Amino acid sequence: MREKQIAAIAAAQLVEPNMIVGLGTGSTATFMIEELGRRVQEEGLNITGVATSIATEKQAQAVGIPLKPLDAVPYLDLTIDGADEISVDFQGIKGGGGALLFEKIVATYSKEIIWIADSSKLVAQLGAFPLPVEVVPFGYQHLLQSFETDGLSPRLRTNPDSTAFVTDSGHYIIDLNLYAIEDPIKLATYLENKVGVVEHGLFINLVSKVIIGAENQAKVLTAPVKFSPPF
Amino acid sequence: MREKQIAAIAAAQLVEPNMIVGLGTGSTATFMIEELGRRVQEEGLNITGVATSIATEKQAQAVGIPLKPLDAVPYLDLTIDGADEISVDFQGIKGGGGALLFEKIVATYSKEIIWIADSSKLVAQLGAFPLPVEVVPFGYQHLLQSFETDGLSPRLRTNPDSTAFVTDSGHYIIDLNLYAIEDPIKLATYLENKVGVVEHGLFINLVSKVIIGAENQAKVLTAPVKFSPPF
Repeated sequence: MREKQIAAIAAAQLVEPNMIVGLGTGSTATFMIEELGRRVQEEGLNITGVATSIATEKQAQAVGIPLKPLDAVPYLDLTIDGADEISVDFQGIKGGGGALLFEKIVATYSKEIIWIADSSKLVAQLGAFPLPVEVVPFGYQHLLQSFETDGLSPRLRTNPDSTAFVTDSGHYIIDLNLYAIEDPIKLATYLENKVGVVEHGLFINLVSKVIIGAENQAKVLTAPVKFSPPF
Repeated sequence: MREKQIAAIAAAQLVEPNMIVGLGTGSTATFMIEELGRRVQEEGLNITGVATSIATEKQAQAVGIPLKPLDAVPYLDLTIDGADEISVDFQGIKGGGGALLFEKIVATYSKEIIWIADSSKLVAQLGAFPLPVEVVPFGYQHLLQSFETDGLSPRLRTNPDSTAFVTDSGHYIIDLNLYAIEDPIKLATYLENKVGVVEHGLFINLVSKVIIGAENQAKVLTAPVKFSPPF
């Protein structure tokens, strides 16, 4: 079995009856949704899923997971999602798949967050993976220029046909090629203050557990400080 | 003449040949666009306008102001816009008309910003006017709840038929009924850190000149510290 799949199945085992579960987006999350669908069908597991993207919504429907929109649930018990990079201090970069905005919104209202990944995603320092920033299309070229001036090596994400990639919310993604992020909190603050930025892929102090597929088994890492949900 | 119109015409007189001019949105800006159109037609004034909303774009086209999209100009020489509330220290609330996002983006790339208003808009402290916050529709009810918990008396802006008001960018507006904003910078930081918030109507340290229509004449107030444009 692939590492992604090992981690995904281990995480899906942690889902308990009657939970409201946030369903992440991306190749690793796909395995988790498949396994949750199997548990719903074969074990009669009763859960409510909340999708973080249109793609995830379609897959969850296909495997038979009952879904509700985020605004139809009071909160989420657990969200299981992939990550593009996870640092040793449990910070992460997400958004390689372009779903970072909905993923972060769903995470914000989740009591617990588990990230699943193959062992290549664990890093000493964030930044080798380009940091996705979701931006308003209006005036995005000025924002690109501003990031360039600030030394952040920005690149507009495009489709194979060279048109701009558009998120589920109708925004663009600018990937910042930073190589090493010395201070994720400082960078997050800079990005949040920037006019035209909707959200960024730095997920700070959100995850409580990381499950890594490695050497045919799932390794569970627990964050030292439990994050505080806003309710 | 109405105070709004007096201020608007006075500001339009400050536009010089060959300027790239940001055109604000709202009832006061409408008078300014009308006067600029007159100058283009009657005086042969050569300018390039950049619109901050679809409504402004239509009006500017109708009165014959040549327009370019924001991303087709390197910067703006001057932006003239209305404001819903202007405090004695030159901070403001904008967004009553729902165009705050594009207005703030255009302002960000302007060398100089002039606000025009009738005398009722000048206040000792911001906050009597509800503060507009532009938000992502996905999960907005959780955001409303979170603002409610934080004591910000939020209300989703709706159309006359009770459907949600949708901005030119496809977002919703939540108006915060704060009555008095003690610390605009602290509130702005809180809002910028909030997941799901795209932009807010607090315009801080942006304006260089305020023109108020009062007693049949235009009163020009100049901000003590000139703001620093990002270029």
